Amino acid sequence: MSHFQFKILQAGPQQARIGKLFTPHGVVDTPAFIFCATRAAMKSLTIEQMRAANTQIILSNTYHLMLQPGADDMQRHGGLQKFTGWHGPMLTDSGGFQIFSLGQGTVADEIKGRRSLKQAKTLLKINENGALFKSYVDGREYLLTPEESIKVQRKLGADLIVVLDECTPFHVDKSYTESSMLRSHRWAKRSMDEFMSHDDGKQKLYGIVQGGIYDDLRQQSADFVNQHDFFGNAVGGSLGANKQQMYDVVAYTMNILDRTRPTHLLGIGGIEDILHGVLQGIDTFDCVHPTRIARHGGALVKPWHRDQDREHLNLRNHKYKLDQDPIEPDCPCAACNNYSRGYIHYLLKTETSLAFTLIAQHNAFFMNDFMQKIRVAISENRYMQFFAEWSTANVVDKISDQVI
Amino acid sequence: MSHFQFKILQAGPQQARIGKLFTPHGVVDTPAFIFCATRAAMKSLTIEQMRAANTQIILSNTYHLMLQPGADDMQRHGGLQKFTGWHGPMLTDSGGFQIFSLGQGTVADEIKGRRSLKQAKTLLKINENGALFKSYVDGREYLLTPEESIKVQRKLGADLIVVLDECTPFHVDKSYTESSMLRSHRWAKRSMDEFMSHDDGKQKLYGIVQGGIYDDLRQQSADFVNQHDFFGNAVGGSLGANKQQMYDVVAYTMNILDRTRPTHLLGIGGIEDILHGVLQGIDTFDCVHPTRIARHGGALVKPWHRDQDREHLNLRNHKYKLDQDPIEPDCPCAACNNYSRGYIHYLLKTETSLAFTLIAQHNAFFMNDFMQKIRVAISENRYMQFFAEWSTANVVDKISDQVI
Repeated sequence: MSHFQFKILQAGPQQARIGKLFTPHGVVDTPAFIFCATRAAMKSLTIEQMRAANTQIILSNTYHLMLQPGADDMQRHGGLQKFTGWHGPMLTDSGGFQIFSLGQGTVADEIKGRRSLKQAKTLLKINENGALFKSYVDGREYLLTPEESIKVQRKLGADLIVVLDECTPFHVDKSYTESSMLRSHRWAKRSMDEFMSHDDGKQKLYGIVQGGIYDDLRQQSADFVNQHDFFGNAVGGSLGANKQQMYDVVAYTMNILDRTRPTHLLGIGGIEDILHGVLQGIDTFDCVHPTRIARHGGALVKPWHRDQDREHLNLRNHKYKLDQDPIEPDCPCAACNNYSRGYIHYLLKTETSLAFTLIAQHNAFFMNDFMQKIRVAISENRYMQFFAEWSTANVVDKISDQVI
Repeated sequence: MSHFQFKILQAGPQQARIGKLFTPHGVVDTPAFIFCATRAAMKSLTIEQMRAANTQIILSNTYHLMLQPGADDMQRHGGLQKFTGWHGPMLTDSGGFQIFSLGQGTVADEIKGRRSLKQAKTLLKINENGALFKSYVDGREYLLTPEESIKVQRKLGADLIVVLDECTPFHVDKSYTESSMLRSHRWAKRSMDEFMSHDDGKQKLYGIVQGGIYDDLRQQSADFVNQHDFFGNAVGGSLGANKQQMYDVVAYTMNILDRTRPTHLLGIGGIEDILHGVLQGIDTFDCVHPTRIARHGGALVKPWHRDQDREHLNLRNHKYKLDQDPIEPDCPCAACNNYSRGYIHYLLKTETSLAFTLIAQHNAFFMNDFMQKIRVAISENRYMQFFAEWSTANVVDKISDQVI
């Protein structure tokens, strides 16, 4: 019997729902946030600190791990969970995102509709077979095919794994988006064939919906994914040029996807984005945001604690120098229990890595707490009210309320 | 009534002893190791992690704190303990060591008998009044006098504070060592006068024995310190060109010092050094060593776990790549409970700061555990046996024993 199961417990407004995702390493209450332990580590947090922050599930990136320490060494270490000391549920991606994004230099931004400076290209060739790229660790050439991605993910040993797809950039035209989508479908089928050939019940495979911003392509891709026996679905590909377009693309896609499967939104994790994603029926989110901003002094706060048009406070700001309050006075996390904004500001000024640990502790707790609040709001039939309280549009009202 | 007291509980061999050092922030069981939170932080460890490692007492450096955040801002934050979240016993040094060592570029090494490359000089002038130096933070000039050092330490608010002295380098001749010592005595008296003028019972002052490697000067300096009403004594100044000379200087000094006071050995914290220091009657030690080597991949291990002529393993070494054992298989610390040498090796290779956290967690636990083992050995009248088991001279025998 499989240890995997996805149970929908209760429906909320629109497509929102709460559920339970069972894996051999534990249960994930959904909607859930998946933290990015990119290189098999949360950089400045220990696994105990992640647990203390009520973390349910983390992911690691196949691309980095296949280069270092390498899939075979990871297998010798007993797989990701044993290696990292995180014995809870895990997900790995296919490796494709980093190959295309680091290789072409701009995909990460382009998927979100931004253009930016080019980075060094490591992607050497992409064809029907797969992607040839050069290791940033030692310059060796690697060929990542759909089969190889699954083999590597099998050795890494996460519970949830993902088919290889091409991360289609935003700036390409519809015809490229379509042919890229069709190739991703062929890769998805090859990924599944490889997966089935060695399926021992310890992992489950997610398919990915492509199609960019085009409704007819999204429909075609959703049909493909629905027709194949993936355990879960992921919404991938270009999500548009701005937030509203992303919400529209996700809403359209979610309306035509098989709703019995757990559904993941790839690489999205802002507060506002999650509020919308949940409403559109997304069950899990992942993003480097909470830990990445921590390394720049950014501490996530509730809308009514914000001091500008951002979802976080910038603790590098001089005004926090003598601030003796914790990041959030009503937050019970380890960082807010023991340290002031002024102390963290000082640590940032003196470039002390403890600053990143403390902010990341808070941000991890914040995200898990936020997702729990979402689940509770759905279960108590008041998600729309919760949405209104947390949505950025209401920040000003909220502050006024507090003053009164 | 003062919250301060030093009780000697039991005498061991030679001058060794176990005691209890009472402070307003808690009791320190001695012999004890004092950890260096140089800039009011343990760099890669949280206060909770320090507590979990059974830490009793930490110190911070007046020199760095008077420049950033500054004594007045620290006072506004409620003092070091409130600022750092460490509510246990604390010590601050006088600021002198860094001024002379960073200023002249070499004192830290020279006190231990080594010459090294010059650094940028920030010490502008030293005369009877004090030391004029330039801030490395903003280039401002500061005058550190004995009175100023005490005033700053009062604002920082540690339990135990220290008189300002000149850190006499090793390479100077006896006549310079003597005149420097005499000036340090005058500075010590001025430090004490300033201390007494505002003594509110919340802090206690340590005197420092100078005199370099010269027995007659050490005698003269010990007489000075004994004759003044310091709460505690510290052994300072140049301790010689090598370990044997250091052990001789410390042994000689400890024989002539007032033995009713808690006595601190400044800046020394190697395993072998502590074994000797305890025998010579030292009650507290401090050193950046356990946390500094952590940032270079060095994990402290018991003599019979060592693999070369060092007190630590270098986890950067390629041979740990596939090692699935923890740093020490018999260690119950948080790092050894959850992570393998191979994982930490990988984190070091990928320059992930979690590596430093994990090794520092182990090293902090290791030092506290080592000091506790010392106290237990003394209390059970078997310190000489413990000394023999832990002293480097016995490493080879120990390994042979294990093979048999």
